[in-house]
Amino acid sequence: MANDIKTLNIAVIPGDGIGKEVTPVAQAVLEKASEGVVNFNYTNFELGAERYLRDGAILPDDELEEIKKQDAILLGAVGDPRIKAGILERGLLLKLRFALDQYVNLRPTKLYKGVTSPLANPGDIDFVVVREGTEGLYCGAGGAVRVGTPNEVATEVSINTAYGVERVVRYAFELAMKRKKHVTLVHKKNVLVNAGDMWQRIVDKVGEEYPEVTHDYLHIDATTIFLVSNPSRFDVILTDNLFGDIITDEAGAVVGGVGYSASGCINASNEYPSMFEPIHGSAPDIAGKGIANPTAAVLSTAMLLRHFGYDEIAERIDAAVEADIEELGSTQRSTEQVGKDILARL
Amino acid sequence: MANDIKTLNIAVIPGDGIGKEVTPVAQAVLEKASEGVVNFNYTNFELGAERYLRDGAILPDDELEEIKKQDAILLGAVGDPRIKAGILERGLLLKLRFALDQYVNLRPTKLYKGVTSPLANPGDIDFVVVREGTEGLYCGAGGAVRVGTPNEVATEVSINTAYGVERVVRYAFELAMKRKKHVTLVHKKNVLVNAGDMWQRIVDKVGEEYPEVTHDYLHIDATTIFLVSNPSRFDVILTDNLFGDIITDEAGAVVGGVGYSASGCINASNEYPSMFEPIHGSAPDIAGKGIANPTAAVLSTAMLLRHFGYDEIAERIDAAVEADIEELGSTQRSTEQVGKDILARL
Ligand SMILES: CC(C)[C@H](C(=O)O)[C@@H](O)C(=O)O
Ligand SMILES: CC(C)[C@H](C(=O)O)[C@@H](O)C(=O)O
Repeated sequence: MANDIKTLNIAVIPGDGIGKEVTPVAQAVLEKASEGVVNFNYTNFELGAERYLRDGAILPDDELEEIKKQDAILLGAVGDPRIKAGILERGLLLKLRFALDQYVNLRPTKLYKGVTSPLANPGDIDFVVVREGTEGLYCGAGGAVRVGTPNEVATEVSINTAYGVERVVRYAFELAMKRKKHVTLVHKKNVLVNAGDMWQRIVDKVGEEYPEVTHDYLHIDATTIFLVSNPSRFDVILTDNLFGDIITDEAGAVVGGVGYSASGCINASNEYPSMFEPIHGSAPDIAGKGIANPTAAVLSTAMLLRHFGYDEIAERIDAAVEADIEELGSTQRSTEQVGKDILARL
Repeated sequence: MANDIKTLNIAVIPGDGIGKEVTPVAQAVLEKASEGVVNFNYTNFELGAERYLRDGAILPDDELEEIKKQDAILLGAVGDPRIKAGILERGLLLKLRFALDQYVNLRPTKLYKGVTSPLANPGDIDFVVVREGTEGLYCGAGGAVRVGTPNEVATEVSINTAYGVERVVRYAFELAMKRKKHVTLVHKKNVLVNAGDMWQRIVDKVGEEYPEVTHDYLHIDATTIFLVSNPSRFDVILTDNLFGDIITDEAGAVVGGVGYSASGCINASNEYPSMFEPIHGSAPDIAGKGIANPTAAVLSTAMLLRHFGYDEIAERIDAAVEADIEELGSTQRSTEQVGKDILARL
């Protein structure tokens, strides 16, 4: 019997601030839920602001190579106000997404019973954003001349390829088949005509292979309206890297805060490890107090399990979290206590 | 006495759909409010979808030259679902903004008494978005190769200049001086490091000249959260062309719909005419029924008057609209009736 237990090698990057507090809770839930089915072999990587401030390292090549050998990555949160914007984001987070070709950035958005939405009439919110993760304006393909002078010019270049778009479009349609069978492409094709037109053509083409799935199109600006006025209209939102960044934060807000939102950076062809993380940041203001809510980190472990086909275990975690939020979501609890409460339901 | 009456030459572009219905109401309000102080000499330009469908013309050079000679432009709305996305937007709307160097896209956002916000606790919402209007991703500087093949690559290029950024930053600080003295720069400087860094440096530099004005910074994704969770934190939001497009629609949604939002595309150095328009579109679904709400179009005339220094008349229009919304905003009225009700208050 014991031979049937599978082992997954997990790179753990707790990161900074509350990342270090919520990640152990996530690991505990992952282990307990998977008992007898999957074992986890963790390798810790000390990456993030503290490491950078200590020895200047962001993501050394040899550590990246070690990470590549793992089956998946659990990430806490990365960031520190002492560090200039862009350094850790581009050197660590985005470097991982790009180096590991994590082309699907998956962000489920759900309004849980027991959570108060800022909307007066939120309705039944349950959609998934499929955000492209390796292209667009995130390529770092900009530049600047005459920096600091009155003649400075700074550019940012969005690179989009049919190869990169088609694979994520396909993922979105596959996902829609398992859900309410509707895909909404979000772009700004009336202005960004080159990239927008390509996205639309590829969606139309791939869509023909999924006759059961309907699809529509919304401009990014109109999308921000619908997320407030009628968020239950969405099932699968498909969009590019930057637009996905923007709408998933707004989506997190309408379901009561990013504290309940997890995210997967997925290499869906499994050449490299995928990465799972809460959407929230390192929250330096509450770090060290033991009061960070580990729910989103716990939800990210369910995404990890689903990625490896352990849907049943994932569902048990989701159900435990859902019950916990419904019953105790409005109470003030320590990080540890939320962990205990969720564990007790497994 | 009559000699003291000033004349303004106004290019009127009613455009399509409800644009044609709300514009005459706006003109009537403009005239009545300005009686004895300003006369308006209107020149109509038939531009928009219908013209394009009839003779293929979008914005002929000679008409653009005529428009350039006017003092300002009143625009209704442009757009028609029969026309491919991008054609009228880039050929007419954006062409006007760029050709007339309308570098300040000014979008006041206010929650009027009598309007229901979709937020449960909206608070006191009253801010202005100062959106750059002539640069960024709106330049049309992208391209594509191997279109329609699996090897297609499409790019979009955001061009940002210190010249272009500094003038709009200065405008935002000047505006803040007349308001609550706070500017929030919105960008994505942790990813778009070239442009973001330049925007931040210029804000810091110009900010030193306005010691009474405080300023802070938010990422675009975080901004979409605050617009839902705490919109009253904003006074003047300063941002680039694309981010401004996105957040003004979300902002319009949180104050109860873009039906109450007007917009000015302003050439603040007065070399070319500025353009004033409601934020809403041509709304083909309700066009021709006489039920479009002309409020946003009317508010755009107040912006026009303010642009020429007629603050007192502008305030009378704003006050009439405010009173109208507060008292009758929740009733079903025809376009004509709303116009009459507002006129009666002047
Ligand atoms: C930290 C930042 C680089 C990142 C992004 O923009 O993708 C974050 O906002 C996110 O959404 O994961
Ligand atoms: C119609 C479109 C080109 C335009 C824009 O993106 O600027 C509109 O959305 C706006 O906000 O005025």
